[in-house]
Amino acid sequence: MIDGLPMGVPAAGLPRRVRVHEVGARDGLQNEKAIVPVEVKAEFVRRLAAAGLTTIEATSFVHPKWVPQLADAEQLMPLLAGLGDAPETGGAGLRLPVLVPNERGLDRALALGVREVAVFGSATESFAKANLNRTVDEALAMFAPVVAKAADAGVHVRGYLSMCFGDPWEGPVPIERVADVSRRLLDLGCDELSLGDTIGVATPGHVTALLTALNEAGVPTERIGVHFHDTYGQALANTLAALQHGVTTVDASAGGLGGCPYAKSATGNLATEDLVWMLHGLGIDTGVDLGQLTDTSVWMADQLGRPSPSRTVRALSHKES
Amino acid sequence: MIDGLPMGVPAAGLPRRVRVHEVGARDGLQNEKAIVPVEVKAEFVRRLAAAGLTTIEATSFVHPKWVPQLADAEQLMPLLAGLGDAPETGGAGLRLPVLVPNERGLDRALALGVREVAVFGSATESFAKANLNRTVDEALAMFAPVVAKAADAGVHVRGYLSMCFGDPWEGPVPIERVADVSRRLLDLGCDELSLGDTIGVATPGHVTALLTALNEAGVPTERIGVHFHDTYGQALANTLAALQHGVTTVDASAGGLGGCPYAKSATGNLATEDLVWMLHGLGIDTGVDLGQLTDTSVWMADQLGRPSPSRTVRALSHKES
Repeated sequence: MIDGLPMGVPAAGLPRRVRVHEVGARDGLQNEKAIVPVEVKAEFVRRLAAAGLTTIEATSFVHPKWVPQLADAEQLMPLLAGLGDAPETGGAGLRLPVLVPNERGLDRALALGVREVAVFGSATESFAKANLNRTVDEALAMFAPVVAKAADAGVHVRGYLSMCFGDPWEGPVPIERVADVSRRLLDLGCDELSLGDTIGVATPGHVTALLTALNEAGVPTERIGVHFHDTYGQALANTLAALQHGVTTVDASAGGLGGCPYAKSATGNLATEDLVWMLHGLGIDTGVDLGQLTDTSVWMADQLGRPSPSRTVRALSHKES
Repeated sequence: MIDGLPMGVPAAGLPRRVRVHEVGARDGLQNEKAIVPVEVKAEFVRRLAAAGLTTIEATSFVHPKWVPQLADAEQLMPLLAGLGDAPETGGAGLRLPVLVPNERGLDRALALGVREVAVFGSATESFAKANLNRTVDEALAMFAPVVAKAADAGVHVRGYLSMCFGDPWEGPVPIERVADVSRRLLDLGCDELSLGDTIGVATPGHVTALLTALNEAGVPTERIGVHFHDTYGQALANTLAALQHGVTTVDASAGGLGGCPYAKSATGNLATEDLVWMLHGLGIDTGVDLGQLTDTSVWMADQLGRPSPSRTVRALSHKES
């Protein structure tokens, strides 16, 4: 079935190639209850790379007190040595970004030779307060020297922006506010943005309206990635709207890691397999081998001791068994 | 959260109103392991109607040997008496179609005063053989007198067409074959069609291509309903493509009934709540009260003794608890 389906039928006006920004090892594992051994994490990243993913967010250099799941960042990165090297020098040419919350996190990452980092901002005051204990302005001020230092070191910077559609405390988030913070992240020197629908409430018209507003605010589509959550099942429909707008970078989490359907705290990450099924069905190239990716997610679900919440993983793995 | 979200942001070129064709009581319960008491079924339909659904497929007049879950069709319909009556005569004006496999099923339905029926055809020979033990031609020949007799009785006829995108035995299904069988169902006298992605493999470009081919074969969009399954998580993205093509009738199953994620035989019905979330987010009117519908699905899940597979039901009901 993997061989024959989905039938590749391109739709008008969509990109020919999409870069999947794989967040399972960072965003996914950060939101899982289990703490995974560092060797398993390294093996997970290697398997994801072997399945054809070219950008794999590896870990976070946040203080271990806040995210014990990723407290082994210093141990993990050396295990991935070589994967990020250019093919000419014998590496896999993999992009292995890591999250850095502040200058201290950046210094730790730079000391390990990291070539890509990401900062994690919020479009809303409530979430900036809850997640960073700062106002939106204070968070941007904290990022300024991080982004500048990274740029000086020739390191690529991604700016995550959370709560771009709805916020659990504030409700719907005004589009102009998101456009404003996005513009300011680029002005700081971020190379690309990732617009997060952190609580999964977005719908396709909202996506189109936000992307249009961002363009009008001077943010070009090619610097925008989208990061949808499947909390209400909307992630793929929203992705389709983003593709129709010209977006070519889509975040997803292998096997839907971090979005366990059995937990009340489900963040509902879009599963990479569900995304790849749609992209391949649309005739869009991703470089990903869906069967190999599914096998990797089944393996990871075994490590975590619970089934994958990805519908595609469930359907394909039931088929095999 | 139900009050404020999703934020209604219309998208260009979409219909303003969509009719949700609720299939939970028939297609859903038919695919659940549990056999639900007839009083519970009647209460389910009444609650769905109270939540604002205007078309509720009630049951099937197939031989009880084949579908024991719906063997109580004769007992159920009298319990729903009045719901289908016109508002002028004190009824709810509800559309309550029932499935009829053949002339004998139609006669049983007509004897109970049913005003809408549906026949269930297949686009592929393999599924026609497996489901009806007939060729596609023989199945159409069997439907001919059913549709004619229904038309004589002034009864509205829906023609379901299964396996419109992929088939578990044959793989991808040629679009021209689906267009041909669709055209023949309309020629028999069917008033509307429901195009089924029975195994859930469709992607949005395939949907657009099929709808375009149907139009070219003389099937107008206003007579087409779409019936997507969420087996690979594609149902809402496919629905968006159908809406963009002008489709205004979408099938869905309250709470995702019939698509239990814990069963290997998951058919993966699109959950009505996930659909309504997207439609309301797009500013499209459905007449459905999402909170009341979710409560109904939680109640039904309790009757079945297992959680709802709908992401929206899970998210909204966790929120309340």
